[in-house]
Amino acid sequence: MNFNEILTKRRAVNYFDTERDVDEELLKIVIENGAKAPSSYNLQPWKLKVLRDNKQKAVLQKLAFDQPKITEAPVILIVLADRDGWKEGNNSLESVFKDFVSSGKMQPDQRDWFLGATTGLYGRDTEAAQAFANKNAGLFAMSLMYSASAQGLETHPMDGFDHDGVKKEFNIPDNFWIPMLIAVGYLKPGVKVHPKGWRQSYNDMLLK
Amino acid sequence: MNFNEILTKRRAVNYFDTERDVDEELLKIVIENGAKAPSSYNLQPWKLKVLRDNKQKAVLQKLAFDQPKITEAPVILIVLADRDGWKEGNNSLESVFKDFVSSGKMQPDQRDWFLGATTGLYGRDTEAAQAFANKNAGLFAMSLMYSASAQGLETHPMDGFDHDGVKKEFNIPDNFWIPMLIAVGYLKPGVKVHPKGWRQSYNDMLLK
Repeated sequence: MNFNEILTKRRAVNYFDTERDVDEELLKIVIENGAKAPSSYNLQPWKLKVLRDNKQKAVLQKLAFDQPKITEAPVILIVLADRDGWKEGNNSLESVFKDFVSSGKMQPDQRDWFLGATTGLYGRDTEAAQAFANKNAGLFAMSLMYSASAQGLETHPMDGFDHDGVKKEFNIPDNFWIPMLIAVGYLKPGVKVHPKGWRQSYNDMLLK
Repeated sequence: MNFNEILTKRRAVNYFDTERDVDEELLKIVIENGAKAPSSYNLQPWKLKVLRDNKQKAVLQKLAFDQPKITEAPVILIVLADRDGWKEGNNSLESVFKDFVSSGKMQPDQRDWFLGATTGLYGRDTEAAQAFANKNAGLFAMSLMYSASAQGLETHPMDGFDHDGVKKEFNIPDNFWIPMLIAVGYLKPGVKVHPKGWRQSYNDMLLK
């Protein structure tokens, strides 16, 4: 699909078709396409919890202002932003370093330099780690939602929920922040999607 | 351009054509297309500082590990994430509330409820505000980079810089975090862009 069409077509849809499931192979394509997003040193500090089970979705719905779309959408993604994604031993970081070495971008003896850089930039304090985890999860989530649109799917990002309640209920380890939930599915037949709301103009966005 | 092409084509490019400028009207289109991204309650807590001046870019380069692409790319965007974007009086929030009322999504007497929701979700503490600002800036930045690709431009997101030094040098108010810089321009002729690095598979991304 043409990107300009996707820009217009992608809407945070409120009504999902409860009769139409999202194929697991298609979901995998959407998520792996989403993960082609760039990230800090390619560290990809994001994980997902994929909910399809109605009982689990109902529990989540209660923690998210009881929004019906959580049980109506066939798939809910709990997006997780890893605040430890800059640390030695982190799976993703270790895979990235191996990739840097095997592709010749870094030499094995640059490991200390690399770990010093990620620690200094992203792990120097909790404020920096929170920014690192969340901006990268934002890049991934946006890429994932456009990838879903390109496959004919609809999405709805949500961050109105009891953050700590969801963490506890779904046993999310403390290194993760939950930037958002994303509902994935198809539009309910007969529903008219309204145009996008107000957006800042270029001039509005320039720091005065 | 087809979105699947953009997914492959979008790379963090290291070498920009120093002879080819980015037209201001094109940049405006790219940024306004980028801003079609979704955000928390549509609050769009992001701003930009656009650098084209070589002296300014040279100052920034010194604060960013002296990466030559900062002066080589015709445009550098300093992306700003507004940690106060949930507060009463914030320009973007006030425009959003007006839009909600004029479109019938909210009634005027829901203002207190709305402000209570944004404060409770995003302003309850500095950790929540940092996540709010950065995840939304991440959504915007990703949308902007894909929009640039769709217009034949190249980008490079960078977050290796002296965060507080850049804030000070460019007089960025304290409510903003700087999640990244984005270089925008055209690929230097004759440069071969390497394929994307390692990415997590679907299974890698699932929280174990």
